[in-house]
Amino acid sequence: MDKKHYEYFKNIVGDENIFEDKAHLIAYSYDATREHFEPDAVIFPRHEEDISAILKHCNEYKIIIVPRGAGSGFTGGALPSEGGIVLALEKHMNKILEIDMKNMVAIVQPGVINMDLQKAVEEVGLFYPPDPASQDYSTIGGNVNENAGGMRAAKYGITKDYVMAIRAVLPNGDIIKAGKRTIKDVAGYNIAGILIASEGTLAVTTEVTMKLIPKPKLTKTAMGIFPSVKQAMEAVYKTMASGITPVAMEFLDNLTIRAVEQTFNKGLPTEAGAILVTDVDGNLEDDLDFQLNKIEEVFKENGCSEFKRAKDDKEAADLWFARRNASPALSVYGSKKLNEDVTVPRAVLPELLEKFYAIADKYSINIPCFGHTGDGNVHTNVMVDGSDPEQVKIAYEAIEEVFQATIDLGGTLSGEHGIGIAKAPYMKMAFTDEEMNLFNSIKMAFDPNNILNPHKMGLK
Amino acid sequence: MDKKHYEYFKNIVGDENIFEDKAHLIAYSYDATREHFEPDAVIFPRHEEDISAILKHCNEYKIIIVPRGAGSGFTGGALPSEGGIVLALEKHMNKILEIDMKNMVAIVQPGVINMDLQKAVEEVGLFYPPDPASQDYSTIGGNVNENAGGMRAAKYGITKDYVMAIRAVLPNGDIIKAGKRTIKDVAGYNIAGILIASEGTLAVTTEVTMKLIPKPKLTKTAMGIFPSVKQAMEAVYKTMASGITPVAMEFLDNLTIRAVEQTFNKGLPTEAGAILVTDVDGNLEDDLDFQLNKIEEVFKENGCSEFKRAKDDKEAADLWFARRNASPALSVYGSKKLNEDVTVPRAVLPELLEKFYAIADKYSINIPCFGHTGDGNVHTNVMVDGSDPEQVKIAYEAIEEVFQATIDLGGTLSGEHGIGIAKAPYMKMAFTDEEMNLFNSIKMAFDPNNILNPHKMGLK
Repeated sequence: MDKKHYEYFKNIVGDENIFEDKAHLIAYSYDATREHFEPDAVIFPRHEEDISAILKHCNEYKIIIVPRGAGSGFTGGALPSEGGIVLALEKHMNKILEIDMKNMVAIVQPGVINMDLQKAVEEVGLFYPPDPASQDYSTIGGNVNENAGGMRAAKYGITKDYVMAIRAVLPNGDIIKAGKRTIKDVAGYNIAGILIASEGTLAVTTEVTMKLIPKPKLTKTAMGIFPSVKQAMEAVYKTMASGITPVAMEFLDNLTIRAVEQTFNKGLPTEAGAILVTDVDGNLEDDLDFQLNKIEEVFKENGCSEFKRAKDDKEAADLWFARRNASPALSVYGSKKLNEDVTVPRAVLPELLEKFYAIADKYSINIPCFGHTGDGNVHTNVMVDGSDPEQVKIAYEAIEEVFQATIDLGGTLSGEHGIGIAKAPYMKMAFTDEEMNLFNSIKMAFDPNNILNPHKMGLK
Repeated sequence: MDKKHYEYFKNIVGDENIFEDKAHLIAYSYDATREHFEPDAVIFPRHEEDISAILKHCNEYKIIIVPRGAGSGFTGGALPSEGGIVLALEKHMNKILEIDMKNMVAIVQPGVINMDLQKAVEEVGLFYPPDPASQDYSTIGGNVNENAGGMRAAKYGITKDYVMAIRAVLPNGDIIKAGKRTIKDVAGYNIAGILIASEGTLAVTTEVTMKLIPKPKLTKTAMGIFPSVKQAMEAVYKTMASGITPVAMEFLDNLTIRAVEQTFNKGLPTEAGAILVTDVDGNLEDDLDFQLNKIEEVFKENGCSEFKRAKDDKEAADLWFARRNASPALSVYGSKKLNEDVTVPRAVLPELLEKFYAIADKYSINIPCFGHTGDGNVHTNVMVDGSDPEQVKIAYEAIEEVFQATIDLGGTLSGEHGIGIAKAPYMKMAFTDEEMNLFNSIKMAFDPNNILNPHKMGLK
């Protein structure tokens, strides 16, 4: 970076919060995509005022800057793919500022780890439901900017359903507050609404006000084994439509079950077409039994051959074991995994999976699937031998067909991982030119010099 | 309107769907604010393609156009305050297109009446919770554009919590779809998020995809009588924080109770400081009793002198009578009512009401309050003699203090009515210049020629 700019930033944040050494540049060059791009510098802002001063300077001199939380994203949203500065928020801006029990609200800085927030609020009897698989290390700022989901989305929704207000710095350095610590607020445009899922391209989040809910007293777990994936998928949407809303309704297909069994030897039913694992919650034992009875009824009407209820936490953990360990187990099918998170309306899940297996057959590859069927979100894993360029090429062809099948069924490219750079090439499959033009106009309204995390999400 | 433009529009929609006669201009000049502004013409588009062609022409010739649902808004959002065309959506675009029971989704045109949607989905066992007081006549398009709330917001949230996707026409005529029939979707900017509550200033809504939920089987009603409004307000937030989330938690203050009693003679406790009326729902009798027991416990800990449970629908209707008839009864305090819908974090409700009564004392006027305390939303009614200009002047001074008190406590100018023209003068109390600049930039990104419902919400 130009010495003049380096000195300017150093004067703002201090010598100890700006780095250009190779170790820092490498450390902040990657995320969970395995892509990497070295930035020109890494800055650790101490507070909102630092960020405002930094962005003002970047805007004036058209210096690219990329905000970053934990760097655990699956799509490259926080990667400095065009160079510039990485603005790393996890070092100083990682405090839970307030847990307001009277209003059931938490106010946090962007670098707070999701699980730290969950634990802190559960200690006082409250509940923050969004639980992305990355919950042990991903940050709330990243969760908000990617609109992270998780297993509990079937009942409790996703990150956006818990964001009441966002403080942020605009690319020109202006500090704004969007939203309030109120359930209702219809004064002015819903700026928080557009900042959610904007992947750090519109503003730098400096504080988030999160809605909390009372923690349900009881949770129970059950598992259903199905002869075919089709019957399991029918059971999913029929359960939800029956009037029961389980906390989670997760599935593993036959390929995934076999991979987990091969890896961990847990006595799983390797001949089953699919397994569904479900949690219900509430405050009354009777209510939980009512919910599980109804689920069992719907499952059995749809071919479920065995319905197991966990009697205690240990049994519950056993029922969840296969689902929680599905992702790493899939390496039995190849060293290269293209892991997508497509989402469709629940009722077309049976059809979606049929299409995926047909794609697998066509290319003679394995596409094991598991995921959050309660909200129509399928983790689709195209597995090939990563050392064989021909196989890798086939994998990308298959992925394009996976996306097309999803879109044809009214689904989306991404239910929770975002677009970043990884899915940017597919945006034109999902959006019209008019829609892409609107995205670009909004980007320009916030960031006319295109300095903040530019060219992500297929934007200009 | 210029004959050339009239002919152009007539060719699009047909002779029978464009009017310039006085009767139409008057009929489409007003809403629930009692303000009125005659448009230059009224057009009834038949479908999205009509709207696209009309907007394209308006954009080219810089003709102002204002979309309108039922015209039941309280803040002038649908009034043609700058002239131009009223685009009236209630005549042709008023169909429920689909109720998708498998995915629990409804797809509706903007002119569908809220209550018609509620009834249609309840017939098939589903539930659309948002229930603004205008539910019998307001349209879904209007509800989305104002982000309407209602009594059930305490448990079930507001309109934005049910919007999954919006089809809309941009001011340049482009047709876009924002969102999908999926629970999760993080591809591209959250355009639906910014369209909600945009008061028809960014795009014309042509179709809305609404999330539905299973209809709870049982509802029970109770009422608590409190010696002071402060104790009642303490009971509100302590109930919510106790782990119980009632469907509704509504209040009437002493002035409101007395007005209803004077008007309807129902034997209400006219010495009470406040009444709270609450509904709980669920699928199990025991669960409802559990909730009501907890509410009774919290109420009594906070001074509740009498807790009545409705034994049947008739008794429930009796308990609700005072709340449902509060608004018209207030005319006993004067012919002019300035009705605001300020909202604060629940826990400061006791302080907020103290401030309101101090304002009333200062100006020697009555400010009866009632409303949706479960979500911090207070209907604040500044009552004066409308025939006395001095009193009306005082009323507006008092309202400004009402807003300031609300903002000082972290609240918002509007919980559900929007800004429109009525509250536009107060926007600068609530937003910084930087925030207003951002609103204007977003408006320009969607509508560079400022043709669509311009100058609302305090925008340029």
